[in-house]
Amino acid sequence: MAEMKTEAANREKTILDYDTVALDDENSAVVIIDQTKLPGTLELISLKTAEEIWNAIYLLKVRGAPAIGVAAAYGIYVLAKGMPETDFETFFRGFQKQKDYLDSARPTAVNLSWALKRMERVCLAFRERPVGEIKTRLKEESIEIQQEDIRVCRAIGEYGLTLVKPGDGILTHCNAGKLAASRYGTATAPIYLGQERGYGFRVFADETRPLLQGARLTAYELKESGVDVTLICDNMSAMVMKNGWINGIFVGCDRVAANGDTANKIGTSVVAAVAKQYGVPFYVCAPTSTIDMDTPVGAEIRIEERSPKEVTDMWYETPMAPNGVKVFNPAFDVTDQELITAFVTEFGVVRPPFREGFEKLFLEKGKRK
Amino acid sequence: MAEMKTEAANREKTILDYDTVALDDENSAVVIIDQTKLPGTLELISLKTAEEIWNAIYLLKVRGAPAIGVAAAYGIYVLAKGMPETDFETFFRGFQKQKDYLDSARPTAVNLSWALKRMERVCLAFRERPVGEIKTRLKEESIEIQQEDIRVCRAIGEYGLTLVKPGDGILTHCNAGKLAASRYGTATAPIYLGQERGYGFRVFADETRPLLQGARLTAYELKESGVDVTLICDNMSAMVMKNGWINGIFVGCDRVAANGDTANKIGTSVVAAVAKQYGVPFYVCAPTSTIDMDTPVGAEIRIEERSPKEVTDMWYETPMAPNGVKVFNPAFDVTDQELITAFVTEFGVVRPPFREGFEKLFLEKGKRK
Repeated sequence: MAEMKTEAANREKTILDYDTVALDDENSAVVIIDQTKLPGTLELISLKTAEEIWNAIYLLKVRGAPAIGVAAAYGIYVLAKGMPETDFETFFRGFQKQKDYLDSARPTAVNLSWALKRMERVCLAFRERPVGEIKTRLKEESIEIQQEDIRVCRAIGEYGLTLVKPGDGILTHCNAGKLAASRYGTATAPIYLGQERGYGFRVFADETRPLLQGARLTAYELKESGVDVTLICDNMSAMVMKNGWINGIFVGCDRVAANGDTANKIGTSVVAAVAKQYGVPFYVCAPTSTIDMDTPVGAEIRIEERSPKEVTDMWYETPMAPNGVKVFNPAFDVTDQELITAFVTEFGVVRPPFREGFEKLFLEKGKRK
Repeated sequence: MAEMKTEAANREKTILDYDTVALDDENSAVVIIDQTKLPGTLELISLKTAEEIWNAIYLLKVRGAPAIGVAAAYGIYVLAKGMPETDFETFFRGFQKQKDYLDSARPTAVNLSWALKRMERVCLAFRERPVGEIKTRLKEESIEIQQEDIRVCRAIGEYGLTLVKPGDGILTHCNAGKLAASRYGTATAPIYLGQERGYGFRVFADETRPLLQGARLTAYELKESGVDVTLICDNMSAMVMKNGWINGIFVGCDRVAANGDTANKIGTSVVAAVAKQYGVPFYVCAPTSTIDMDTPVGAEIRIEERSPKEVTDMWYETPMAPNGVKVFNPAFDVTDQELITAFVTEFGVVRPPFREGFEKLFLEKGKRK
């Protein structure tokens, strides 16, 4: 698929017409909406090489834990497809090399390594079969990962919708919407489902500094979808809660530890602390693929630090900070499990104690492999 | 004084060389550092007409409660000075008209109306004297307001310093520094005094969206003064507190209600809620002029709302939010008194219950008139 640029001013299509991530098998490419250009420009880009895929993830052209997982799955399939049909060992060495490379693009979201490991297991499961057949299985698996994601998001929406009522005010942070996942998004799934059913939610979107995913992406996709959305700066959350405008908070997550501690976009734990102060329920929308029972507590989650320039230089025409000032710029933070009212998974709502809740859920429903 | 522009790149003077607000009596002007141009450009501007003074306050060219008070005092003096030396009644009607006009520039900070009322009382106290003498008294009073401000800030610094120890990590929000007040600032006074005494504080400055006073002004003035300062986005406060890097928080205030509820820059109450969660002491540096015993509780403080463009358009080269999105942009919020550990005033530290503490303070020490 050729690169396509559409200026916001005179475009006909919107993000509602495209998947955040898609497989273009004919051209052996992963096609993504370049999220760094939104909301000004809707641009699809076609990723073919390992470097292009890695860069797209690293530079947040595709971001959001579920979307990163889908992009990585399609990406490793496309790369595997281009490998010569040698013996399994040679093929698998090449596969692992690319897998490790893609896996290094971002450290915090579990979905990146989760999707790549799942693709690797396909190789191993079919190791006795010809490499050509393994490639076919990899394609099927990558498509299935995205299809599952769509079903998971919708199920999260249904369960999330049981936690709020028509007319409610809802706050969300960063973007865990259709741009971060498939179709309904995760944190936005109850909002979109409610919108379809005439719930009339009033949604407040934190702008989410430094990269403004809330302003650029969440406010944008909700507005395009006709949702009543109001943009606020991150530091206004206490005021809207104190004003009684917020009945529930939905956020996404990048990795949930076994005890419920949750890594998500920087600032999530600020919202959670404020919500506790004002008695507002705080819900984390978590596909079970983001629940990492191998990480016992949040302190063990590695937090990505990004360039100071994201804080001091990006977006701005004139200097917005003194030249050379020290900056601390963590991309995520960990919200203590005690601040979380419940998790909304595709299998249902999990309330404290979370470790027991997760274990029970996985025993009863199985865990997304 | 002529307008003076100095590019940051090759300037020799810094903000340390100038007062935030100064009286240029020879030219009948108020001279201010234009804070909207910092940190890129250090520009002094000379205000002569009522409209110029009103606009400078409204557009935040001069901002920070104490600095607004000083600018208003010098401003009303300069305007009074230009009035014809008629009978008192005619003079006073003109004075009041200008006073009411300046008073309308911003609603939340008490210092604006406080300084103007204090100047008005001078007129009334000398109503039997010739208008020419009243003008002289007004000049003396406006200079005294600034001189008091310097002494008050220094006293706040001394009392604030008793609450922290060498090597401590300190967080501050917005700018209650030398740009917001006189010389030492209010929230920065313990930091600057500590700096003079080799305390080696590690200071974290919230950038303070939407107008970035923390990044543009606080990080700038602390860095110029050699303080170890690290810039963070507002939504990173929970992470630095959870990491154990913060031993105390100092913020300024625009108006304190009699029960201790405190209006200050938007986001202050977010920091306070997070501080409670992580057990970090939260101190409000409050000249007694900002304590408004006529306002019983915070809910009665009028909160200024500003243009959506501050959130969606300012600073940015490319669209950072969808066109026409709804925005809520309050300039201040009210921090509940229960979240405040203590007030640091020029007369000492006041701990809960605050109403009783303020009353006792004013009984013992008098209140700044």
